[in-house]
Amino acid sequence: MLTNSQTQNLPAESSTYLPPTDAKARVSEFMKQLQDKIVAGLEKLDGKGKFQEDSWERPEGGGGRSRVLSDGGVFEQGGVNFSEVWGSHLPPSILTQRPEAAGHGFYATGTSLVLHPRNPYVPTVHLNYRYFEAGPVWWFGGGADLTPYYPFAEDAKDFHKTFKQACDKHNPDYYPVFKRWCDEYFYLKHRQETRGVGGLFFDYQDCRQLPLYRGPNADGGAAEYSNQLGTPAPRTWEEIFAFIQDCGDAFLPAYLPIVERRHGMEYTERQRDFQLYRRGRYVEFNLVYDRGTIFGLQTNGRTESILMSLPPLVRWQYGYKPEPNTPEAELYDTFLKPQDWINWKGRHQ
Amino acid sequence: MLTNSQTQNLPAESSTYLPPTDAKARVSEFMKQLQDKIVAGLEKLDGKGKFQEDSWERPEGGGGRSRVLSDGGVFEQGGVNFSEVWGSHLPPSILTQRPEAAGHGFYATGTSLVLHPRNPYVPTVHLNYRYFEAGPVWWFGGGADLTPYYPFAEDAKDFHKTFKQACDKHNPDYYPVFKRWCDEYFYLKHRQETRGVGGLFFDYQDCRQLPLYRGPNADGGAAEYSNQLGTPAPRTWEEIFAFIQDCGDAFLPAYLPIVERRHGMEYTERQRDFQLYRRGRYVEFNLVYDRGTIFGLQTNGRTESILMSLPPLVRWQYGYKPEPNTPEAELYDTFLKPQDWINWKGRHQ
Repeated sequence: MLTNSQTQNLPAESSTYLPPTDAKARVSEFMKQLQDKIVAGLEKLDGKGKFQEDSWERPEGGGGRSRVLSDGGVFEQGGVNFSEVWGSHLPPSILTQRPEAAGHGFYATGTSLVLHPRNPYVPTVHLNYRYFEAGPVWWFGGGADLTPYYPFAEDAKDFHKTFKQACDKHNPDYYPVFKRWCDEYFYLKHRQETRGVGGLFFDYQDCRQLPLYRGPNADGGAAEYSNQLGTPAPRTWEEIFAFIQDCGDAFLPAYLPIVERRHGMEYTERQRDFQLYRRGRYVEFNLVYDRGTIFGLQTNGRTESILMSLPPLVRWQYGYKPEPNTPEAELYDTFLKPQDWINWKGRHQ
Repeated sequence: MLTNSQTQNLPAESSTYLPPTDAKARVSEFMKQLQDKIVAGLEKLDGKGKFQEDSWERPEGGGGRSRVLSDGGVFEQGGVNFSEVWGSHLPPSILTQRPEAAGHGFYATGTSLVLHPRNPYVPTVHLNYRYFEAGPVWWFGGGADLTPYYPFAEDAKDFHKTFKQACDKHNPDYYPVFKRWCDEYFYLKHRQETRGVGGLFFDYQDCRQLPLYRGPNADGGAAEYSNQLGTPAPRTWEEIFAFIQDCGDAFLPAYLPIVERRHGMEYTERQRDFQLYRRGRYVEFNLVYDRGTIFGLQTNGRTESILMSLPPLVRWQYGYKPEPNTPEAELYDTFLKPQDWINWKGRHQ
């Protein structure tokens, strides 16, 4: 997805490119604390459910701690996973993006979560931040995105605003680029739908020039868009890590207020059925397209932790189409297409 | 999966290799009739449900008729799909297997089905037979496999016996090779489980020498096994088509008696929960591994018809393990591993 040729002005062997010697320890400590903070915030909100922890080791190197909440007051199921793994080589799917890593061992640490609320008016949410080192290269990746079942523009707007603030502290280009990248990454081509209202997504962030997103096709619209942005000077490792920390810390302020205003709303079988049906799209995305899932399965990861993102109960229905002029139709017409949520002035307030 | 170098003794331009001029029409007519016969047999068995037909056209060429039964007496959901499509080029996943087809248009026709019974004691079943022509090459592929939720060796044995009879009429090597191919194809690597008790699976069958299955790795056990088989003389197109017809016609006799003896069995929430959980594996297989699904999505197929195979209701549960000494544990220990069902003398009769 990225064309690197124009963005790698700083050679990998330059000392200003190198991460600090304690980079792995610092990032992994942050990722663990992020898991702790988020779990504490979610348990407080949920009121009833408690996360159960499984610590696990990976035979090829490393391990993690998976924390899962089932049958809570708000969350039907939620998983927050921390992992820190290493091995002798990265899988092919990453090497095509980072050929400099070929022939080198790798280290990866990160925290990821997916929450499936019971009430259909509460959106599902996903977050993942990660850090890689592999021979001469290293990078950060991640993001967070929101998947509502019912159309509330206020929720989409607030979620985006909170992450935009985290981005704007660091670079005015981050939000527009990473918002667009998110819309294009979380896209179900076979359904011609976005997964939800998006948020942020980025990958391969290192301290060479800002790697602008070029879109899925060389001649696609996104390339044109990216070229209009100014490219900032090379960034330091510390600057990128600070940005990642702010993004991680933005999660609870972005998501909890949405849950608080929706989880008491009454619903019937109709909304529940629609939620279970739409959860099928989450499964389709994660198993067909998601690079985190594919990386995990390709590196012989812990299957239960990788597939923790799948919903507790899901429905498929042949040929479903929403009835015109219903909230379900509004979701399809407006919320499953990329929108400028920050400046949203339309319906569904 | 196939090494072709040893099996292509007959050049593609040889006249004895060419299909008859009416090959496409004859196969497509057979595939349509197969759909009709199976649908009629299933409706009679179900008693309550009726298949609803959607005819559809594919913008790039061709179309099909999808028939779906929902909420029947026996089947919670079932789909039987006929399609006949053509286009300017095959997708990359097939071209790597059949490089002679590069730069040529293609034609493909086939019938496929997946049935999800409501009663957890009735196994899920899948069938697919297909025919391709692309430039100088053509081939048949297909198979049928059974996915029980509860362990009944009698069902596995009878299913295999019926298909073995269909195979043995044509070639004594077919059943052992295609049975093994099925066990290896319908394998969930990330779970280290077979999808069920298997059946038959084969691909790229043309009238050059019998393309023996070489296993997933060049140095794997399957290669050794295949080499012990005699390789028959080149087959005619007519012989292979006759074999495909017998396989298709074996479906109802293989599956209906199993449904008849299981669908009246009483069950509780426990069996139902386990069925919904195990259906998750069906979703994982179809979205992560299945080449029919990938072909369909890559060729801009009709998504609703491709994903008709997904179950109507599915459950995922983090960290599930069956309790020892239960029927659920027996399924894992015995029925989710390749077994010689024809000669089965063990428990679970």
